Amino acid sequence: MKLCTFTLQGSRRLGLLDGEQVRPLPADVARDVGDFVRQLAAGASREELIAGAGAPVPLAQVQFLPPVVAPDKIICVGLNYHDHTKESAYAQPDYPTLFLRLTTSLCAHDAPIVRPACSDSLDYEGELAVVIGTGGRHIPLDKALDHVFGYSVFNDGSVREYQFKTPQWTVGKTFDATGGFGPAVVTADELPPGARGLKLETRLNGQTVQSANTDDMVFDVATLVHVISEAITLSPGDVIVAGTPAGIGWARSPRLLMRDGDVCEVSIERIGTLRNPIADEVLAGAVAA
Amino acid sequence: MKLCTFTLQGSRRLGLLDGEQVRPLPADVARDVGDFVRQLAAGASREELIAGAGAPVPLAQVQFLPPVVAPDKIICVGLNYHDHTKESAYAQPDYPTLFLRLTTSLCAHDAPIVRPACSDSLDYEGELAVVIGTGGRHIPLDKALDHVFGYSVFNDGSVREYQFKTPQWTVGKTFDATGGFGPAVVTADELPPGARGLKLETRLNGQTVQSANTDDMVFDVATLVHVISEAITLSPGDVIVAGTPAGIGWARSPRLLMRDGDVCEVSIERIGTLRNPIADEVLAGAVAA
Repeated sequence: MKLCTFTLQGSRRLGLLDGEQVRPLPADVARDVGDFVRQLAAGASREELIAGAGAPVPLAQVQFLPPVVAPDKIICVGLNYHDHTKESAYAQPDYPTLFLRLTTSLCAHDAPIVRPACSDSLDYEGELAVVIGTGGRHIPLDKALDHVFGYSVFNDGSVREYQFKTPQWTVGKTFDATGGFGPAVVTADELPPGARGLKLETRLNGQTVQSANTDDMVFDVATLVHVISEAITLSPGDVIVAGTPAGIGWARSPRLLMRDGDVCEVSIERIGTLRNPIADEVLAGAVAA
Repeated sequence: MKLCTFTLQGSRRLGLLDGEQVRPLPADVARDVGDFVRQLAAGASREELIAGAGAPVPLAQVQFLPPVVAPDKIICVGLNYHDHTKESAYAQPDYPTLFLRLTTSLCAHDAPIVRPACSDSLDYEGELAVVIGTGGRHIPLDKALDHVFGYSVFNDGSVREYQFKTPQWTVGKTFDATGGFGPAVVTADELPPGARGLKLETRLNGQTVQSANTDDMVFDVATLVHVISEAITLSPGDVIVAGTPAGIGWARSPRLLMRDGDVCEVSIERIGTLRNPIADEVLAGAVAA
């Protein structure tokens, strides 16, 4: 099952994605993947939740939103592919390198990733996104995948100059509208356990800039859920963004950075393709309440 | 005006703190400081919001909650006192060192800060907390303090071994129930602009371990609001945790770390004293949905 969140005739809806069409669920059942997984965690069955899905609507009539519109947590993993760690300034840690993004940094499939006016150092990072179904703390390794609802695609857009202004990367990783997320969440039952063995590819203006396999992750999905939950209580709808492979633009010579009018796509086999145009920030209208 | 959030007879309430008593606001007006500032941002006046405050209740009859129960953002500032940077392994950056905490890491005044079972390296960090009233992006420096609703006290409890397992501090800064926050938010009109010139002191079991003045911050409150909002849209109820001065336990020789049964207090002049006992994590009952 593939679930996506979108705006249809001005209203936020969750729907079943089927090729170029989507079947909206009734608004009182669930209005994003977060609602859906919380209902599952509260005891509802998938079958009853999707029973009222409406007639198919062509994708051309909807505007995508992030599949989970406002996750309680967006936990990102750095240095999670050996080849990417090698192109960075860091040694490979033996524990996942965690940082957080804010909801304000998310942007939907087809919506622009925004290059801020203050820097021209906007870079791509294609990544696997893991959506938590059942929360918990101290989740054992051998039960960790039972807590995963599904998988999606993420572009961990990074403003490199800001990422490296201080020892902590956070600000460069959480500029408004820099984190592409979507288009859909594919439920775990449709994929290999832990979404292993899937090809991940990032393309900038059609040119392949990252090409890897989820098998190459230093810490696999089960390990991430297990290790993170030693410290943090996970909740339904939380998102773990599992790290990027080699090929980022900042590590190239000459550097390859994203500019207004570019199009960046991240594809993960059997999950989907996240596509975002890049647009310069428009400064007019700043400082709203 | 001092506002605090608490549980009274099983229900979450916001109230006006007055010495050892609190006057609860009607539950349909606001149930935490987040509700209150969102109502102000939507056009309500303070006077109408507090008009229905009830009869005083002794503090002994309530249980404190974090003043903002679930902030959209908890943005922390590292390396924001020169003397603390000197006791760390870092050089002083010329930009605020930002990282994020999760809501799951908050704990209320009088509630235990929990030392996780996986580490005995739990340390204190007394800090000024800034609560945003009016949100916005690209907030000019000379308007920044107009966006601050008030100030509170924070203990940025840090699990040092985890903080330094990788280049990113985040996991060590966001263990469940390690971030003391409260007891109250004091509105900005009752304090010097930017909460400048206030004495900050941390005591562990009555012994003073940090003693500084908010004037010593490398980046003052106005600068933090201005600089953060260049990257991130701030919202009513967001919290900025403004950094800790020298004296942390991890930098002492021998190290001074917090243990079950300890009591840690952080006092900021004219704002209040946040007090938290320290308690070891109880592992029974782990892995709840």
